[in-house]
Amino acid sequence: MKQAPKHNPAPQPDSLLDRVHVPADMKALSDAELKILAEELRRDMIQSVSKTGGHLGAGLGVVELTVAIHAVFDTPADKLIWDVGHQAYPHKILTGRRRQMHTLRQGGGLSGFTKRSESEYDPFGAAHSSTSISAALGMAVARDLNQKQNHQVTRSPNHVIAVIGDGAMSAGMAYEAMNNAGTLKSRLIVILNDNDMSIAPPVGAMSRYLTKLVSSQPYMNARQAGKKFTEILPAPLRHAAKRAEEAARVALGTGTLFEEMGFYYIGPVDGHNLDALLPILRNIRDSDHEGPVLIHAITQKGKGYLPAENSSDKMHGVKKFDVVTGEQAKGKIGAPTYTKVFAQSLIAEAKRDEKIIAITAAMPDGTGLDLFSYEFPDRAFDVGIAEQHAVTFAAGLAAEGFKPFCAIYSTFLQRAYDQVVHDVAIQNLPVRFALDRAGLVGADGQTHAGSFDIAYLGCLPNFVLMAASDEAELAHMVATAAAHDAGPIAFRYPRGEGTGAGLPAQGEILEIGKGRIVYESPLSSSPRRKPGSMEPTSANVEMDSGLRRNDSVESVAILSYGTRLSESLKAAKLLEEKNIRVTVADARFAKPLDESLIRTLAANHATLITIEEGSIGGFGAFVLDFMNREGLLAHCRVKNLYLPDIFQDHDDPARQYETAGLTARDIVKMIY
Amino acid sequence: MKQAPKHNPAPQPDSLLDRVHVPADMKALSDAELKILAEELRRDMIQSVSKTGGHLGAGLGVVELTVAIHAVFDTPADKLIWDVGHQAYPHKILTGRRRQMHTLRQGGGLSGFTKRSESEYDPFGAAHSSTSISAALGMAVARDLNQKQNHQVTRSPNHVIAVIGDGAMSAGMAYEAMNNAGTLKSRLIVILNDNDMSIAPPVGAMSRYLTKLVSSQPYMNARQAGKKFTEILPAPLRHAAKRAEEAARVALGTGTLFEEMGFYYIGPVDGHNLDALLPILRNIRDSDHEGPVLIHAITQKGKGYLPAENSSDKMHGVKKFDVVTGEQAKGKIGAPTYTKVFAQSLIAEAKRDEKIIAITAAMPDGTGLDLFSYEFPDRAFDVGIAEQHAVTFAAGLAAEGFKPFCAIYSTFLQRAYDQVVHDVAIQNLPVRFALDRAGLVGADGQTHAGSFDIAYLGCLPNFVLMAASDEAELAHMVATAAAHDAGPIAFRYPRGEGTGAGLPAQGEILEIGKGRIVYESPLSSSPRRKPGSMEPTSANVEMDSGLRRNDSVESVAILSYGTRLSESLKAAKLLEEKNIRVTVADARFAKPLDESLIRTLAANHATLITIEEGSIGGFGAFVLDFMNREGLLAHCRVKNLYLPDIFQDHDDPARQYETAGLTARDIVKMIY
Repeated sequence: MKQAPKHNPAPQPDSLLDRVHVPADMKALSDAELKILAEELRRDMIQSVSKTGGHLGAGLGVVELTVAIHAVFDTPADKLIWDVGHQAYPHKILTGRRRQMHTLRQGGGLSGFTKRSESEYDPFGAAHSSTSISAALGMAVARDLNQKQNHQVTRSPNHVIAVIGDGAMSAGMAYEAMNNAGTLKSRLIVILNDNDMSIAPPVGAMSRYLTKLVSSQPYMNARQAGKKFTEILPAPLRHAAKRAEEAARVALGTGTLFEEMGFYYIGPVDGHNLDALLPILRNIRDSDHEGPVLIHAITQKGKGYLPAENSSDKMHGVKKFDVVTGEQAKGKIGAPTYTKVFAQSLIAEAKRDEKIIAITAAMPDGTGLDLFSYEFPDRAFDVGIAEQHAVTFAAGLAAEGFKPFCAIYSTFLQRAYDQVVHDVAIQNLPVRFALDRAGLVGADGQTHAGSFDIAYLGCLPNFVLMAASDEAELAHMVATAAAHDAGPIAFRYPRGEGTGAGLPAQGEILEIGKGRIVYESPLSSSPRRKPGSMEPTSANVEMDSGLRRNDSVESVAILSYGTRLSESLKAAKLLEEKNIRVTVADARFAKPLDESLIRTLAANHATLITIEEGSIGGFGAFVLDFMNREGLLAHCRVKNLYLPDIFQDHDDPARQYETAGLTARDIVKMIY
Repeated sequence: MKQAPKHNPAPQPDSLLDRVHVPADMKALSDAELKILAEELRRDMIQSVSKTGGHLGAGLGVVELTVAIHAVFDTPADKLIWDVGHQAYPHKILTGRRRQMHTLRQGGGLSGFTKRSESEYDPFGAAHSSTSISAALGMAVARDLNQKQNHQVTRSPNHVIAVIGDGAMSAGMAYEAMNNAGTLKSRLIVILNDNDMSIAPPVGAMSRYLTKLVSSQPYMNARQAGKKFTEILPAPLRHAAKRAEEAARVALGTGTLFEEMGFYYIGPVDGHNLDALLPILRNIRDSDHEGPVLIHAITQKGKGYLPAENSSDKMHGVKKFDVVTGEQAKGKIGAPTYTKVFAQSLIAEAKRDEKIIAITAAMPDGTGLDLFSYEFPDRAFDVGIAEQHAVTFAAGLAAEGFKPFCAIYSTFLQRAYDQVVHDVAIQNLPVRFALDRAGLVGADGQTHAGSFDIAYLGCLPNFVLMAASDEAELAHMVATAAAHDAGPIAFRYPRGEGTGAGLPAQGEILEIGKGRIVYESPLSSSPRRKPGSMEPTSANVEMDSGLRRNDSVESVAILSYGTRLSESLKAAKLLEEKNIRVTVADARFAKPLDESLIRTLAANHATLITIEEGSIGGFGAFVLDFMNREGLLAHCRVKNLYLPDIFQDHDDPARQYETAGLTARDIVKMIY
């Protein structure tokens, strides 16, 4: 990387940043010092993230905005809400969390997003996109009601500021909030952080509109901003300045879409120029304008760090990296990720079947559909951060005989739940749902965990639900979903690398509602096969030996749904060491259940343990319900292992599953 | 009603309408005849709905649009999607369903909405708002891909038309779809049916914008429309006409918000004037314009029927009525509806606590919050058809110490599931959810059933879930929710009238997680108390008699969650007649469970039956899971009664519950 700049290895001991422990310390700084502070903050953040990994590009793009907001406003009394929250590292550094930055995204450490429980400077947590205007409007209305109810006569009312990216503006939720804010009289400041880039380049008409808006006029400078502000000056000044303002208004352009939506529009503003940002924010702070204001700030993702500026994704999410070169640590070369296996399997299916369509809601890279779009540009759709639309758009395609695959993370499909119910399930349309990031997801923590999809989809009529236990199974499930035209079907798989199971040359079409037995303890006391060797046997095999009756020796069946299968096999080994006979089965389907497999397991084991990477109300509940209805519990007890009823903090995934009690050891504990 | 017009009691035998069995029959009609047909259609629909009840005002507003679309386009090859679908009665009459209109919304009869399974003229079903543009775009893309893949070379490509109301435009989903459509090249026709009125007057900035747009320019007439259309004429003609068009364009106004979103905007057009509608639609049909077109049609809800025009809600949803006077049949005067009890209870709480806020997503009347807004206009918020925003807006209010009640139907809360998880549950903010229309809802059918909320909320950490068994309990639950500041809480209650239980002077604050025993069979064989008398006893009472051990006589505990309590009491009577000892308990809470109550019931009965108005994965699953974990199943068998795994068709609610197997008789059957 020849253009890499030089960096100080550590901040100077007497740096301005060292003197800013909380934002209030910035009030003593001159505008010139704030500029120096911004640059120190940028270097500090680069240093910090180089050691922990995390989100880099987005934070670099808002360094000046962060400094300007905290310098001008009075946080935490003034409420500052960062949409998504992954750009809030500079904010964390300025708000008393600088010394914890080395713990970022690690167990017990700082969250990679904003979080109410972490700091009073995070008045509203985030991680999913496009929530900030709604939350900010709620806080603005709360402030106004408090004023009206005369509980805050002694202090001046606080400001509420939401900072939202242009990508997040493609979500319906942001529009709903603007639609509501635009007719309320509440003072609300929305800063549109327009970097023409969210995780991927944003798509859609709004993005195109913003580009047009920016290209049609120069950045607003402080003098122009001052003129514009005569309109929202305190009333006595306003009248005198009106004539001058009118002239300026024509020059600056009016009638933007945001103005049509009831916002007072200010911009475009260079979001890296404190000489523009500071006076504009001060003007807004001091004006008595009623209603919402939108500041259109143009920023550059990755700004000020050449390796980021020069990379195609602006170093959005990074591993540890070398500050001088920008080179990221290589991960160990392991098995392919589930995401990649999904993408490659779908591409293989799509080569055979031109009706297959792939749809992503602004996550082409995260879902692997970027690979699909290179192969089939006409059959790949990135609809923006718009899960609701993605699902019903898919339903429209399915109604016309196409085979749409909606690749949406488990946690983000929550955004489209009603569309899944109303447009897909009720109409029994064969939309395929590829649910990446199922189960616990590690560093991204609570907000990104895919914990609930088995429960929230499992209660829906017409749905078929699958979970892959390894990457070969995922390939089979992609093929199965492609072939399944009878109604909606979903398959879930975790974040990260596969188990190393080899991939099949071609995915097999699985029989709907049939699991498989993966391992059985040998009949004699000395095992003939090791639990490690997973030769699938027919799921329907009737066990024929009297020895295997559940009333004979102690015996356990482990019925796994998802990638806990490897822990189940480990548990089998541990149990065998205690002379317990074990059968391990991969359920494959949570709906419909493999009733025959469950009956067989129940008939031949004293205990049946279910395990899944999901909440209560899911696979285990369905199995227990079935066995209870069928009277199978009288002869075989059931133990259901599922995620605990808490939102688990970010941590290493393996440790998260330990905390959750979903390891081999926890399975063994069920027997003692 | 002095202004009521005269109506023919039945259509003339030789009417044009009699000759239109399918839309193709309209091709033979002249424009003048189409006008007559429209008026016949209006009269026919009024007659029809007067006998069945249903949605009247919306259909009256689109009579001319319906005629024009079917006359100009070639349905069902051309795809016509009615957003929401309750305005589609004229469409049903014209598309072969006229003779079934008397069965509307009745068991086995026509749906009150569009439905794929009902007719090939309903290519996409609807009922929830704002789905039509997404579905239509999916169909348009499917058409284009089919063309590209050369499967449809023999016939001309079909059109796709979505008709969406201005109210539906407040939903984020519609915006997401426009954002996507605006940058795709697919031909798509969106007709904005702007009647400035959905169920209630629409709110928000978009609605205000539309009003401004319409008031700023006269209706477009056929000649102007013709000029405008030079732009999208077939290419050879386009160039010649360009100059004339440019002049017209200035006169007609450009730069609308829809144009910024990438739509070709045409309007405003008088939606009741076939002389304007027909040529405009023909122009669009015949043009080779690529990309989406939006026709802004101004209509009047209730048009052409004075009693509807003159009523404040434009006779949106009606009972049977007298055609001459418009007077609707009086329902029998029964118990107050749950909706009204909720509203009154909330008003009572809000009088005592000024922190209580009420939020509705465009359903002030349906949720009863219109009453609240009369009392507390500053504390009532109608945010538009915007459930996502409603919930996070509420979360913002809760974060600032307010007590927001989100009153959203169970089925519509699906629209905000991610916000419930991400903004409310994870942050453990005390947002209160009043879930009206829980369980089966009768005439509105599949799409409006509130079947899944117990499952989809029950899996979420931090949530407290309640269900009211009668209207007095609902009053208690409103008080309980108002008092519960520890985290999110939801309470569900059904559509329709209460049981007639008296209302308390003031709602009691219930202990979180405590149920109540409602009835116990007397100890002696001759009952001393009748199951009808519901004196609540302490939920915690330990039963002290050896006679009550579950190993003595046959004994059943019925644990009801919700309003199946009355069926449970009926079942108790039936069981007692068979000398079975019965205890009936009202669980009140699905989360947290009343574990002590369950233990007591399990210890003292041979069978425990749970019953709820919800799907699998809900209350019964939680009880079974608890009893299984605690080893209580060895001594007490459990039977879970819940909604079957199907989407049930519309019918009388009592019959729906018979079909579902959730009656007293079904409870009794569990024992034999």
